[in-house]
Amino acid sequence: MAQLMEDEVFMAFTTYAAIVTVKMMLMGPLTAYYRITRGAFSNEEDVGRKSAEEKKKLLKTHPDVERVRRCHQNDLENIVPFVVVGLLYALTGPDLSTALLHFRIFVGSRILHTIAYVCILPQPSRGLSYITGLLVTFSMAHRVLSTVLFF
Amino acid sequence: MAQLMEDEVFMAFTTYAAIVTVKMMLMGPLTAYYRITRGAFSNEEDVGRKSAEEKKKLLKTHPDVERVRRCHQNDLENIVPFVVVGLLYALTGPDLSTALLHFRIFVGSRILHTIAYVCILPQPSRGLSYITGLLVTFSMAHRVLSTVLFF
Amino acid sequence: MAQLMEDEVFMAFTTYAAIVTVKMMLMGPLTAYYRITRGAFSNEEDVGRKSAEEKKKLLKTHPDVERVRRCHQNDLENIVPFVVVGLLYALTGPDLSTALLHFRIFVGSRILHTIAYVCILPQPSRGLSYITGLLVTFSMAHRVLSTVLFF
Repeated sequence: MAQLMEDEVFMAFTTYAAIVTVKMMLMGPLTAYYRITRGAFSNEEDVGRKSAEEKKKLLKTHPDVERVRRCHQNDLENIVPFVVVGLLYALTGPDLSTALLHFRIFVGSRILHTIAYVCILPQPSRGLSYITGLLVTFSMAHRVLSTVLFF
Repeated sequence: MAQLMEDEVFMAFTTYAAIVTVKMMLMGPLTAYYRITRGAFSNEEDVGRKSAEEKKKLLKTHPDVERVRRCHQNDLENIVPFVVVGLLYALTGPDLSTALLHFRIFVGSRILHTIAYVCILPQPSRGLSYITGLLVTFSMAHRVLSTVLFF
Repeated sequence: MAQLMEDEVFMAFTTYAAIVTVKMMLMGPLTAYYRITRGAFSNEEDVGRKSAEEKKKLLKTHPDVERVRRCHQNDLENIVPFVVVGLLYALTGPDLSTALLHFRIFVGSRILHTIAYVCILPQPSRGLSYITGLLVTFSMAHRVLSTVLFF
């Protein structure tokens, strides 16, 4: 195994990055589930051999499907930067406890964000979980840039 | 060259990750091609010095453009997680043959997915290629989490 | 600190990747700013305790919000591949000056792209900055694949 995987901070990063990436990927099947149960598809080839009229009825958008897709999009916009910045952050050799704090808060905030989004919890639950994740990534980016700056 | 690049599994990951990322990026020019040939733009500054009426006609959506964009979006939702999980997976020191199997099936499934999406092949071609890619990434995530778990 | 962070090319990659990723993340708060000032929201829970009529008026799309969102999407489609390919590129041990040239041009082109998009500069400013970024990433991908190819 690579030497990196003997570093505890890097192992912690690996664990949390894998978990939160799998969480993000599960939004795909969740979208498919909402598309099927709500009968709302985007592609003609997905609605099968139906009459033209029935097809037209299924090729629509549905608020629940759009909601899951917005949640998925927000994941892409936040989880991918976390993974990028988190990888670089782990390589700057931070304290294990500080690193764990960052990773745990981020992953927790993104799980709360998904629940708040999909289950339509009242605001500011979704807003706060979004901002928390953002601040964690900015905090790691600050550490990266203040340790490694090389223009 | 970094020590990582002497590891065969990491070299294989590098090769397949670069190929599939380049494939994903080519969706950008492909979208531009469809926008131009179908005359369907999103930004007023893109339709040039035309009369107000002509401009309005070009600022529309077109099913072919939307199709390529959905394909690009699906790439983002699946290829980026593959790269993240695949990088961590490569660092856990898997067998070269097992790793190659994962990388090859994933890249193959995503190329088929793009062909099925853009050329409107009948289902389940697109569905199966999507699920295959997803399962490959989940399989690598399983290996990562069962090898490195550090909470 | 990990050995990687003693390599000047890797330090340069880390610096530019962190900067351009933070730039990308700032599109989130910028979208929120436009949503609030333009009064254009996507989620019912975001418009608060208003009368049904007022809610309906705020749950709409606005051209300025859609513009920032397209800019954010273009960032995702281009900055994420840059980070992936750039990381692999940095590990192939390129000349420091060549690497710096790639990173600087890319980050500069993406900052120009955002300004051209959000401030609606006349074309081809946005088009050229998009293509410049694309070519930088392709150039790095070419170096990666010609150095490391392992099928």
